[in-house]
Amino acid sequence: MPEIPPPLKPPKRVLLGPGPTTVEPRVYAAMQLPIVSHVDPFFYQVAEDIRIMLGPVFGTESHFRMVISGTGSSGMEAAIVNFTDPGTKFAVLANGYFCERISDIAGRQGASVVRLEKPWGETFTAEEARDFIAREKPAIVAYVQAETSTGIYLPGKAVCDAAHAHGALVIADCVTSLGAMPVDMDAIGIDIAYSCSQKGLSCPPGLAPIALSPLALERLRARTAPVRSFYFDLKLLDDYYEGAHRYHHTAPISMFYALREALAIITEEGLESRFARHRRNHLAFVAGIEALGLRMHVTDPANRLWSLNTVSVPEGIQDAKVRARLVAATGIDILGGFGPLAGKIFRVGLMGASSTQENVLAALEGLEAALGAEGYRPAGSGRAAAERFYAANPA
Amino acid sequence: MPEIPPPLKPPKRVLLGPGPTTVEPRVYAAMQLPIVSHVDPFFYQVAEDIRIMLGPVFGTESHFRMVISGTGSSGMEAAIVNFTDPGTKFAVLANGYFCERISDIAGRQGASVVRLEKPWGETFTAEEARDFIAREKPAIVAYVQAETSTGIYLPGKAVCDAAHAHGALVIADCVTSLGAMPVDMDAIGIDIAYSCSQKGLSCPPGLAPIALSPLALERLRARTAPVRSFYFDLKLLDDYYEGAHRYHHTAPISMFYALREALAIITEEGLESRFARHRRNHLAFVAGIEALGLRMHVTDPANRLWSLNTVSVPEGIQDAKVRARLVAATGIDILGGFGPLAGKIFRVGLMGASSTQENVLAALEGLEAALGAEGYRPAGSGRAAAERFYAANPA
Repeated sequence: MPEIPPPLKPPKRVLLGPGPTTVEPRVYAAMQLPIVSHVDPFFYQVAEDIRIMLGPVFGTESHFRMVISGTGSSGMEAAIVNFTDPGTKFAVLANGYFCERISDIAGRQGASVVRLEKPWGETFTAEEARDFIAREKPAIVAYVQAETSTGIYLPGKAVCDAAHAHGALVIADCVTSLGAMPVDMDAIGIDIAYSCSQKGLSCPPGLAPIALSPLALERLRARTAPVRSFYFDLKLLDDYYEGAHRYHHTAPISMFYALREALAIITEEGLESRFARHRRNHLAFVAGIEALGLRMHVTDPANRLWSLNTVSVPEGIQDAKVRARLVAATGIDILGGFGPLAGKIFRVGLMGASSTQENVLAALEGLEAALGAEGYRPAGSGRAAAERFYAANPA
Repeated sequence: MPEIPPPLKPPKRVLLGPGPTTVEPRVYAAMQLPIVSHVDPFFYQVAEDIRIMLGPVFGTESHFRMVISGTGSSGMEAAIVNFTDPGTKFAVLANGYFCERISDIAGRQGASVVRLEKPWGETFTAEEARDFIAREKPAIVAYVQAETSTGIYLPGKAVCDAAHAHGALVIADCVTSLGAMPVDMDAIGIDIAYSCSQKGLSCPPGLAPIALSPLALERLRARTAPVRSFYFDLKLLDDYYEGAHRYHHTAPISMFYALREALAIITEEGLESRFARHRRNHLAFVAGIEALGLRMHVTDPANRLWSLNTVSVPEGIQDAKVRARLVAATGIDILGGFGPLAGKIFRVGLMGASSTQENVLAALEGLEAALGAEGYRPAGSGRAAAERFYAANPA
């Protein structure tokens, strides 16, 4: 037998990366509660509580809302495989890493993938989206509402309108918007929206909320070819969580308890207050970044996520060294960019329980010190600028 | 916004079904620890601790051992999709529900599935397995080592020998054996073994351990066609957990903490002691069942799982009524059969932290009372018989 490992002692981190985010004590406490069987009526009630509370967060009145027993990436796969067959024409608005992943998964299903591409950090005009969809006439259009790799927010109304005009269904990746910014599924016209339990919901990672519009549900029910995945087969999952409660898999009970508690916290805070808090902390952070003489990677403020801030790394500075100094000195954990943005941006998450004034001020102060130690000369005090913003814009 | 739901108050259950099983306080406590990022060196160390401790539990020295971020069913899907392409000849030894599911998933990949069938509760002789494999010459042979739907244990040596003689890889479902009975992956010759975090490991559900033999790893590395699933792509998962630590998904950190603790408990107990405990409690339970005048569904004691006991429902008794009485009176949660065994068996799990003398005695006493209330006249006292067994067979 191997040696008995020492007791787990996680380092203290302030989680300000692109996720996971800070988990509140109440959510940890929920995972202490004794588990029950996956076919216990109590468990089905927990799943139903989650279903109910997910409605406003997704911004939908559609009944079909559930949780996939996997991380956010499993939500993406479930969203794609239930609506994609060999030869399906699948259009992707591609301007970041998660658009690449969507294209990859659709390709693995044998879909005919067509893409409208933009550099990472730019976004699409309504006209560009309309022209692309009108030209390609796809069966599915996928876009990323909140692109974690670039910091871009694309609500998606023009995409959905154009897709529906051509009879296409729309898949939207809401992994970094859900619980932090408006997803507005019904108002925007998203047919299949998925997300994760961490980030804006501030639950530990491990679950993937997903919601279908009535149109998507109709298409799902009409399909006769088997979905290639059993684990992600939404018809079977619907039979498990709803109505007949036909056994499908043993759901991760403790994670469901945690997500229910995280959604209860959101329900208590109220969505409008929650969004306002995220927006305010984001704007204060941006004020601080600009005071430091740094630039946001996403140039138009209207296209910036409130949940995930991308800051350009100044000329001559190595981002990994700055991040290492920051975490060593303060415990604040942020991430860098990857792919074409490797070494070019810092990614600073202010989501869920991590989106606080205290964290914004600490991050600005910590960044200033870490950048300074690497030779960067800030234009002014980021912390002071953020403090002025908070004073001028009370909650 | 929906109403704020009341605080979660799970009912007190003694989990003696086919899973999930009792979770020890230490494991719940591990989920209270603060999460870190999925790319934090601390997290990679937790994953590595798990990898190390999984070796003896699987009975393998093969380096490739990891955890899929989904439940046991996701382990099954990962095991199949990485080794199955359209047209792959895929042989299944089919004698229970999970064999059906394996056939289903292989069929969804476009495999050519061939089956050797037996009634649910019977098993295969070495000769039957050999003849089947020699006749079909499949590329993959799949069997269920521990069939939760029937209570059958099939270690699988003859299956593996015959498969390897024909160059086939062997997939074994070890969902209900891992941590409770010998899996003996290397000694038996299993190429791809998967399981779940609950049941014998006594962690909450949510993760799926998987291990590959060197031969399976060679085949995996040699494949050029993309795996149809991104989420379950073992090559990408290997790049994430090992070496380059290339981002794949945001692993469920709290579940990893829990599984590490559950494996630490197993390492402390020692595998031989743990298996002996399971065997002893199983035999005491069987002694009690027989004293009550009931029959075990699996007739040959050598083919019975120690972890999951299937008891024939006596003539004229409705199993659901008995189970409802049992849980109402004692909190003991067992399950019935399904498919061809619906209404015909009780399934009583004695796995992991649920496998205790106290639970065996309470289950026998509770069953006797519940059966009695439904009109069954027991031949004698089950509890007394089990107590005699324990006295005659000290731990």
